[in-house]
Parts: sequence; C-alpha cells; structure tokens
Amino acid sequence: MRWYVVASLLTVLTSSQGILTTLSQSNGGYKYDYATVPFLAEVFKLLVSSVFLWREMQNSPPPKMTMDWKSVRLYPIPSIIYLIHNNVQFATLTYVDTSTYQIMGNLKIVTTGILFRLFLKRKLTNLQWMAIILLAVGTTTSQVKGCGGASCDSFFSSPIQGYLFGALSACLSALAGVYTEFLMKKNNDSLYWQNVQLYTFGSIFNMGRLLMDDFRSGFEEGPWWQRIFNGYNMTTWLVVLNLGTTGLLVSWLMKYADNIVKVYATSMAMLLTMVLSVILFNFKPTVQLFLGIIICMMSLHMYFARPSTLVDLPLTVKPVSESVSEVPAERKTDS
Amino acid sequence: MRWYVVASLLTVLTSSQGILTTLSQSNGGYKYDYATVPFLAEVFKLLVSSVFLWREMQNSPPPKMTMDWKSVRLYPIPSIIYLIHNNVQFATLTYVDTSTYQIMGNLKIVTTGILFRLFLKRKLTNLQWMAIILLAVGTTTSQVKGCGGASCDSFFSSPIQGYLFGALSACLSALAGVYTEFLMKKNNDSLYWQNVQLYTFGSIFNMGRLLMDDFRSGFEEGPWWQRIFNGYNMTTWLVVLNLGTTGLLVSWLMKYADNIVKVYATSMAMLLTMVLSVILFNFKPTVQLFLGIIICMMSLHMYFARPSTLVDLPLTVKPVSESVSEVPAERKTDS
Repeated sequence: MRWYVVASLLTVLTSSQGILTTLSQSNGGYKYDYATVPFLAEVFKLLVSSVFLWREMQNSPPPKMTMDWKSVRLYPIPSIIYLIHNNVQFATLTYVDTSTYQIMGNLKIVTTGILFRLFLKRKLTNLQWMAIILLAVGTTTSQVKGCGGASCDSFFSSPIQGYLFGALSACLSALAGVYTEFLMKKNNDSLYWQNVQLYTFGSIFNMGRLLMDDFRSGFEEGPWWQRIFNGYNMTTWLVVLNLGTTGLLVSWLMKYADNIVKVYATSMAMLLTMVLSVILFNFKPTVQLFLGIIICMMSLHMYFARPSTLVDLPLTVKPVSESVSEVPAERKTDS
Repeated sequence: MRWYVVASLLTVLTSSQGILTTLSQSNGGYKYDYATVPFLAEVFKLLVSSVFLWREMQNSPPPKMTMDWKSVRLYPIPSIIYLIHNNVQFATLTYVDTSTYQIMGNLKIVTTGILFRLFLKRKLTNLQWMAIILLAVGTTTSQVKGCGGASCDSFFSSPIQGYLFGALSACLSALAGVYTEFLMKKNNDSLYWQNVQLYTFGSIFNMGRLLMDDFRSGFEEGPWWQRIFNGYNMTTWLVVLNLGTTGLLVSWLMKYADNIVKVYATSMAMLLTMVLSVILFNFKPTVQLFLGIIICMMSLHMYFARPSTLVDLPLTVKPVSESVSEVPAERKTDS
C-alpha cells in the first residue's frame, strides 16, 4: 500500500473520530464511561493484529519475530510515556485554560520534528523545517478564537508553570511517537508481531487506568468490568472501532512511513473536523479557519513536493530522488 | 546602493509613517487638513528629484532624458490609476466595514504577483508563488481581530458588491505599481528625470483633488492655498517629509528592484507598526500578530533565499544564479 493512501485514510478516520465522539454524546455529556473507549480500542487492535499474525504464520516463510526479552521489554515504553504524558496534560490544565492548552498542543508538531532529527537522525531540508513550523502556525491560526473568545486575553497571561508543563507535554507526545517509530523500524520483524507486543502492553496499561479510576472513586459504581458496556450504543461502538483502526494505521505509518507523515495526517484531520463541523453542526466559519487551511496546504506542498517542482533547477539535473512519492521515510536517512 | 538596504529603509520609514500619523493627531482627530499631506509630499519629491537631476546635468555624460510626447504622456497614467483606485476604495467602504476592508486589502499582494507575471512577463518559481500567497495570509492573520472584534461576524456577510469592489481595488492598486515599474524600466532614462515627470503629474493631480474638495464644500473655508498649513506642527511636517522620502525610495525600487520587493517592504512595515504600537501605545499583543510575523518571515525567506539553501541539490550543481542577492528584479526575466 502506498503511504499517502494510508495517510489519507488516517486523516479521514481521525476526523470522523471527532465527529463520532460528538455524536455519541447525549445532551452534551457521555452516558458511557469514556475511559473504556481507549481500552476497548487497544483490545480491538490486539485482536486484529493477532489474527493477521496468525494468518502470516500459516504462510512460508514464517514472519520474522524477535522473541527475546531484550527486545520485548522495549514495547511497554510507549505506554509508559503516554501515562506520564496524561499526567503532565492534567497538570498543564490546572495552570492554563482550555484555549491556551489547545493552542500549545500545536507545539508537538515542532517538537516531533526536533526529536525526529535528534533521536532518529533524520535530516530535513531547510524548506522542510519551514514547512513543519508553518504547519504548527497554520493549525494554531485555525484555532484562535475569533470573536469574544477568551484565548487572546489569557494566552499571554498564564503562569509560567503552565507554559513549562505545556512544553513538557509537547516533548513527551513527540517522544512517544518518535520512540514508536524507532521501535517499529529497528528490525524487520513482522508488523503484526510488533503490534501484538505494543497492544498487549497498551491493553494492560489501559486496564490499569480503569482500575485506578475505580480505586479513586472507592468502587462506588462497582469494578470496571461490571459496567464496561454501560450506556454503549451503536455510535459508541463506532467510536471504538474507529479509534482502533486509526491506531492500526498509525502503526503501519510508523513502520513504513514516518512521524512527520503522521503529524501531517492528524493536522489535516483537525482542519477537516472543523470544516465538517461547519457543515454538520452549523458552526460559524471563521476567517482564521480559512487562513489556517491555506497555510497548512502550503506547508504540505512545501514538505512533500519534489524540490524540482518548487524551484528552478538547471535542466540537466535529475530530481534528488525519483522515489520521493513512494517512501518518504527513506529519502532523508542520513546514516 | 543594494536593493535590500533601500527595502529595509522603506520598511522602517513606512512603519514610522503610521506612528507619526498617529502622533500628529490631537484628541483622536486631525487639526490640519489631511488631504494636504500627499500634495506636499508630491511637491517635496518633485523638488528633491529636480535638484538631483540638475546636479546630474552638470556632470558629463549628461543624464539620458527622453523628452518626446510619446514618452511623457505615459507618466500621468499612474496618477490616473490612483485616482480611480481612490474612488473604488470609497465605493468599497460603502458596502463593507473597515475590518473587512482592511483584510481584503491584503489581496493586493496576490494581485501584484499576478500582474507582475502577466504584465511584466516575470517568471516566478512555484515556491515564490507560495511565498506570495503566504505573505498575504500572514498579513491577514495579524489583522484578524482577536477578541470582541466585529471582523468575523461581518467578514462573510457583506454584500457581494463589497467583495467585487474590494477585488477591483486590489487589481487597481497592483496595476498602478506594476505600471510604474514598467515605466521606470522601459528605457535607461535618468531616474531623476523619470521622477520629475511622475511627480509633476502627481502634484497636479493632488492639487486637483484639493480643489475638488473645495468645490464640494462650497469654498466654505476658503480655497486650499489659503489654509494649506493650518494646524501644521513639527510632527505634521515630519509626516510630509517621511511620506515624500518613502515615495522616493519606492521609485528607486521600481527602477532597480521590483514590485515584489516593494510589497515585502510594505508588508513588513505593517507588522513593524503593529509591534511598535504594542510598545509605544500599549496595544495588547495578540496571538494572531505573533503567528502573522512567523508566517511573513517564512514567506520572506522562501521568496528571497537561494534555492540551494532551501532544498538539497546534488553537490555538483551550482546555485541557479550567484547574483541572486544583488538584483532580484533581473533574475526572473523570461523574455
């Protein structure tokens, strides 16, 4: 499969996630326990990957599976980073309001670029760096509240801890992505075997979270496994399936494309959600959304277009790489 | 003189123009007739250019001066375009509010690029086109009202005539600039001789405007020449000198650089004015201003940087042109 097909699918499904989640609410609240959704999505991903792995194992040659503990022990690390990240997010929100929080969230686009360079040693051209910064600026632009919003009053007036936690949050989020890419690419193990390891730990950590919530509430409503499907309806199941599928797509991209492709897909999804909200929920379109879309489209083109289509190169020169549109992950390896 | 020195000077002076004009007001209004300022600036430019031309004529070889009517008759045309443009501006403002008007004003950046291509036959790379669009998006972003402004309520709700007049206004403004560049570059006449012709007609047209105002008000306050310096103070004179000097710099750029350089200089000036307003007049800095500055800086770099510094070119390839940073106007000629 071509990476851009997967990335486009990820964009559409990530975007649907926002819409579906909104649709799954009744009277502005959740009838079900939202914390059960990521847990069930992890289980769904684990099941799907197991089935695919099993099918692969029927074939010959059998899939490559590194089983020793030295390798397996690396797979809970993304879950651990996400766990820390969740707590930092929570801490950030005690210092800043949700608008400022949302705007600072775009910082993870830039931190992903930085860690991608430092940790995975991928080289980006200056134009690609500019594209990444513009992507973050574009998504931020679209989110700036237009009229009567509190964002600009409060954005420069939050306590310094808020910004520090926000920056830490952006670094952790980027680290989780970059680490997962490192994990998926470090050997040529079967994707499904890597997924099975990743999602086994993911399910365990999510289960742990549900249990923690139960302890916090003193088991008032009973243990999580007794009320896990409470309030679930068709839309809730779609939310779970959708979240699980996006997870599988991200995993594919981490192995066969890279983090930057994922960042573009999710940023475009954010804009698509806003456009769909205008259409479906009668949200008012803002000038900022319009401007943000233009900026992000320019950024996309700057990052992925062949240099020869952007600048005038002497006619005798061939494009740097003919396979640019095939596997973007490969062309920037400098090791 | 290097074009970027002149462009930087133009940025600083254009930016001071906004600050000086604000400082020249008393109690939020003008004590003097503002229409006299452009007239006096034209006269100032005419005087300065005459002096320089006279000094040039003492030298040998004497400056090249095309005197025949076929050439001279082209010089009132920019003034005529500006006259039409003023009236279209006025018409636009009867349909749209000032915020929408200001935001639509950024369209002239894009129309300048288009006329630059069509009328002057200058080729731009795709990256440069993207840079021009981003410049327009960046200046617009910085102007979007953050909190409680009326801009986003009204931007998509003005009558269609408002947008059409706004687009026409952007085209006329670009046409005036592009036509002036054509005029300045069509032969190698002395810059000062070209200026003398341009500003003679400019002074006449501005005088005509003052006279029109007098007729409109029924000479209630007497003819313009009796009250021309009424309410003038030191700051008003600085406004006149500053406006005149920026005009001379623009004229230089039209001959030795191009319209796009001018558009960048004035856009940067707009941002600089906003930053200075935050410092000098305690304006509240907005997230939008911050985002707009980043976008415009990226655009500037995309447009003017050597392609070889932006993308990876094969090492054996020389930069497209070594003189890129010298005369940007020359490198894109495709005739």
